[in-house]
Amino acid sequence: MEESTALRETPLFRGLSPAQIEKMIGISRELTFGPNQLIMAEGETGDAMYVLRHGTVEIVKSLVLSGLDEVPPEQSKTFTRLSAENGEAVFGEIALLEEAKRTATVSTVTECRVNEIRKGDFLKLAEKDFELGYRVLLNLAGIVSSRLRRADEDIIKLTTVLSIVLKD
Amino acid sequence: MEESTALRETPLFRGLSPAQIEKMIGISRELTFGPNQLIMAEGETGDAMYVLRHGTVEIVKSLVLSGLDEVPPEQSKTFTRLSAENGEAVFGEIALLEEAKRTATVSTVTECRVNEIRKGDFLKLAEKDFELGYRVLLNLAGIVSSRLRRADEDIIKLTTVLSIVLKD
Repeated sequence: MEESTALRETPLFRGLSPAQIEKMIGISRELTFGPNQLIMAEGETGDAMYVLRHGTVEIVKSLVLSGLDEVPPEQSKTFTRLSAENGEAVFGEIALLEEAKRTATVSTVTECRVNEIRKGDFLKLAEKDFELGYRVLLNLAGIVSSRLRRADEDIIKLTTVLSIVLKD
Repeated sequence: MEESTALRETPLFRGLSPAQIEKMIGISRELTFGPNQLIMAEGETGDAMYVLRHGTVEIVKSLVLSGLDEVPPEQSKTFTRLSAENGEAVFGEIALLEEAKRTATVSTVTECRVNEIRKGDFLKLAEKDFELGYRVLLNLAGIVSSRLRRADEDIIKLTTVLSIVLKD
């Protein structure tokens, strides 16, 4: 019960009944990692998403094509920390939609406990409980859509800077 | 019947039964536009998506912040044409997920016939038919997710170019 209360706070499970959250827990695998361990690597193909239940992870994302060695690594990557406490503790969730390459590397900072949910298991469950599938996807699509909006804004800013720089 | 056959080909309705496609038609409003008419304007708040049933539209998207008048308009925008014939004829679909500002301007090139589907009507229908809601959202989330992946790739390319340019 304590488990499902914590999971209900994750944005991905908003609107699910306690019974539906239990079903999501039922298809998930609980994993424990020590500090400084790799959970997923950028460029790998992933078919699972993760809910961070305990601990802090660091998300590292390349900003510059690799092999460009004149750019120091700390200027060519973004670093974000995610803690189980902040209620937005979901990562790798695009893997529920398509088997795409991971766009970030995620490693543990502290000891972490995560629930791993695989795409195939989620789709099988959703085909049996369409309401659950609908509500999870509504939340997931909202998360992806707001990220797309932010990415579009970043592209406009970058192209603007580039236009100014190239004029000089 | 001819209507639902054409709509079944749009990627957003993949997996829907003919009866479910009829329901989607039932909540949509059929609109006809002459050539060179505005369907939606960038920056406006939208709460409807469109399925292009007949004709060709042009999608214009800003790449550079407005007010930067040293950049000629043809270099600061992208132009894409969408025809009813190519089966990917859906636009404004993010409005089904959130009431966000339109990120592109869409105008007709030829005479066009479109089906307009409003967010509120879709959500009401999905709450009555979760299978329909699940299948539409699975398709929609896949479309948005692959766009996010492309946007992320563009950001990496732009940041790389900018790093190279700023080094010189």
